[in-house]
Amino acid sequence: MKSFIEKSNPCVPSSGYFEYPFNIMVYFGIMVLKCEYAVRGEIASLAQKLQQDLQANPGSHPFEEILYCDIGNPQSLGQQPITFFREVLALCDHPALLNKSETHGLFSADSIERAWQILDQIPGRATGAYSHSQGVKGLRDTVAAGIAARDGFPADPNDIFLTDGASSAVHMIMRLLIRSENDGIFCPVPRYPLYLASIALHGGTLVPYYLDEATGWGLEISELKNQLETTRQKNITVRALVVINPGNPTGQVLAETNQREIVEFCDKEGLVLLADEVYQENIYVSGKQFHSFKKVSCSMGYGDNDLSLVSFQSSKGYYGECGRRCGYMEVTGFGPEVREQIYKLASVNLCANISGQILASLVMSPPKAGDESYESYFAEKNGILQSLARRAKTLEDGLNKLEGATCNKAEGSMYLFPRIRLPNKAIKEAESLKKAPDAYYAARLLNATGIVVVPGSGFGQVPGTWHFRCTILPQEEKIPTVVSRLTEFHQKFMDEFRD
Amino acid sequence: MKSFIEKSNPCVPSSGYFEYPFNIMVYFGIMVLKCEYAVRGEIASLAQKLQQDLQANPGSHPFEEILYCDIGNPQSLGQQPITFFREVLALCDHPALLNKSETHGLFSADSIERAWQILDQIPGRATGAYSHSQGVKGLRDTVAAGIAARDGFPADPNDIFLTDGASSAVHMIMRLLIRSENDGIFCPVPRYPLYLASIALHGGTLVPYYLDEATGWGLEISELKNQLETTRQKNITVRALVVINPGNPTGQVLAETNQREIVEFCDKEGLVLLADEVYQENIYVSGKQFHSFKKVSCSMGYGDNDLSLVSFQSSKGYYGECGRRCGYMEVTGFGPEVREQIYKLASVNLCANISGQILASLVMSPPKAGDESYESYFAEKNGILQSLARRAKTLEDGLNKLEGATCNKAEGSMYLFPRIRLPNKAIKEAESLKKAPDAYYAARLLNATGIVVVPGSGFGQVPGTWHFRCTILPQEEKIPTVVSRLTEFHQKFMDEFRD
Repeated sequence: MKSFIEKSNPCVPSSGYFEYPFNIMVYFGIMVLKCEYAVRGEIASLAQKLQQDLQANPGSHPFEEILYCDIGNPQSLGQQPITFFREVLALCDHPALLNKSETHGLFSADSIERAWQILDQIPGRATGAYSHSQGVKGLRDTVAAGIAARDGFPADPNDIFLTDGASSAVHMIMRLLIRSENDGIFCPVPRYPLYLASIALHGGTLVPYYLDEATGWGLEISELKNQLETTRQKNITVRALVVINPGNPTGQVLAETNQREIVEFCDKEGLVLLADEVYQENIYVSGKQFHSFKKVSCSMGYGDNDLSLVSFQSSKGYYGECGRRCGYMEVTGFGPEVREQIYKLASVNLCANISGQILASLVMSPPKAGDESYESYFAEKNGILQSLARRAKTLEDGLNKLEGATCNKAEGSMYLFPRIRLPNKAIKEAESLKKAPDAYYAARLLNATGIVVVPGSGFGQVPGTWHFRCTILPQEEKIPTVVSRLTEFHQKFMDEFRD
Repeated sequence: MKSFIEKSNPCVPSSGYFEYPFNIMVYFGIMVLKCEYAVRGEIASLAQKLQQDLQANPGSHPFEEILYCDIGNPQSLGQQPITFFREVLALCDHPALLNKSETHGLFSADSIERAWQILDQIPGRATGAYSHSQGVKGLRDTVAAGIAARDGFPADPNDIFLTDGASSAVHMIMRLLIRSENDGIFCPVPRYPLYLASIALHGGTLVPYYLDEATGWGLEISELKNQLETTRQKNITVRALVVINPGNPTGQVLAETNQREIVEFCDKEGLVLLADEVYQENIYVSGKQFHSFKKVSCSMGYGDNDLSLVSFQSSKGYYGECGRRCGYMEVTGFGPEVREQIYKLASVNLCANISGQILASLVMSPPKAGDESYESYFAEKNGILQSLARRAKTLEDGLNKLEGATCNKAEGSMYLFPRIRLPNKAIKEAESLKKAPDAYYAARLLNATGIVVVPGSGFGQVPGTWHFRCTILPQEEKIPTVVSRLTEFHQKFMDEFRD
């Protein structure tokens, strides 16, 4: 196997290599090695280990259960799926049920009706066949109608690409936009790690812009301008701007005036606007409202020739169907040649999973007043959102009471991102262990309390500041325990390291 | 928007650019532009147009319906899903059904039992939650047990990665193996276009090896050796060998002796063996049997340190659940560092869709003798496979009767790949229209008969030979029509262009 090594190209920059136990030299490209996914990192592995410990040996740790506040995965923490969605999915999975009289006793009338509608939208009623690479046309019609109803502006089913979750759509767009490491993508700091990973995988450069923690994670145009200028001086072509609204991990909801400024900025600077709007229904404060960037740009009079905009939506909303991998992107303001390239990329993936495609259509077209399921649907949805709002408030209040900690409001999404001010001694202790101080804090927290959070360093933060991301998803009755354990731990930690 | 152009790096090789209608210059990387997907190409678009014509204006063409022989998509042509699979999926989608007495009248006892088992395997019974990035551990246990039962050698659930179809697994592996265009991946010619597209997308070089049509699409080691030598002279590092067994588009099933030679070759040359085994249950001739490469290498005494092997399986088998995007790869013989890289890539996709993960477990663990569903399951499966075998034989016989055509046996998979010997006049006519001769033939065939096939040039073929890929999937009662229309067309075509 010598030739394998000899023929390796030593000019590939910054690649790593290591030896196979069985004598094949493997030499991976920088892109895979660079790509990290904080929410599935070291702390997650530690939590898994502790969970196994507790199962094998109850009482082996000073807590009885792991309290997961790390991943935006509501159903893993006991949230129940929306009944109507699952009724329709089950009927579409096994359409033979639709011809049985007993089915009417088991399913709501509107889920049965909807399943028939959906089956009629799928060519040959074949719910196991590959669909059009953009997704089943009839389901895209439904999604487009849902967008139009939400925004008050028309949406074209030909602009919709149904995808296996938003991640898959983001990868497609990054693949399209990034030609080399000289291509930059503007991303907020802090930001959900998907963007870092996807940009790294596709060989581009993440160009950071900082959200202003002091103004509730405000997105300042002056910051974008400064960063753009600096970046251009480095011979990086910034091609797109990622905006996550509501914010992840930061939980803020953008004001419409701010969104208008962002649209103008992208137009002026020729940037593609990538709007991550997967938490569009998760809003917890009465003063804020979600506005899609599509709606904002349309209301400003922008047409298809003025702004290239991609809006991402997924199964990660309040209904928490994360594992169903459903999502769509709405792609507007691109010319036909680019559209063809996007279609080509979609066709390499053949199509998104049909069950997820159906779910995407349901999310954008839930039961309406008068439908049999309407009241129960509405009660389930509101029950989830109101409980999340209460959990967010209790956690936010608890976090703000910790010594040296400040936490902005969770206006939306599923996350809080408190800043913790750690004593120098703690920082030194972390450094001596070759850990980021917030990762050290998170590991200590987990070992002491069973509470899992994600260190801020996985999302990016202003250098010298430390944070963690905490979801608002533990069951409501467990939130007081989370707060009290965290409070007790934090006090002890601060006492231990007080300068 | 000038800066967008000025800052573009003119050194990126062979990239194309074109102008946005709204004045942003877009300049895409070679990788996206190079990537083509023959089965979703020009002929597919023409078929779609004709289908719309026929709907809008019946009688507008000399045929009443489009006869799709282009895509391996059985359910789109009326094949019904396996009842047991769909029963379990429906119950897992809507677990509330399991507590209702009426459910026992609607579902088989073993589907109810299996659904309970699966729910118990999923942490928190949360069928909408993200799973472990490799897939739900309990479902991987089931898949591993199914592999062990199939092969008679153990399989480790930690070696299983559940994926959104085989495509997603192939992309992950290509991403891992390819560092630059100096990395080559051995692929058969002819071959399923996924490989060309995936290698192009990841910036590598497809290194062809030719299957020998004269020996029933035989895979000759001498050919591999020759190509390897030539390729190494070009300073290309060949990193892996793709083998598709049963063949796509070629339909052959490899003999075990041949597989042993391939294993030895990969071992000797230090190549990762990528075994596309998605049609493992689709075998139509009594003299042939499917053997997994895992089984073959284990039976040769190869252990985990001797051969790096990835086996791909998917929802594309006889059950035809293509659109459910289920699949797995079994990854053996890689060191822990490489495994970590694969896991990292999997974690960027978060997880495969849960419904597809469940289906993967069902495929590898169908009803057993004694289960209530066993007889109906067996009847459905055998009904499909026996009908496919009859269709394959009828088509093969019909194709072999065409003037100048020869067609190897469809021993397995879902395809025939006849060679057509076209008159020079036809070739010249095609060239004058800037079309490949087989693409010209396929377009003429479609326009005359409504039969859709994929030109051989989309799969690769020995230069100067022409083929097309024809699925065996049209409903059995339509096969005689396919044969007679094709025969009539072919005769007229040959008469028209006879030299």
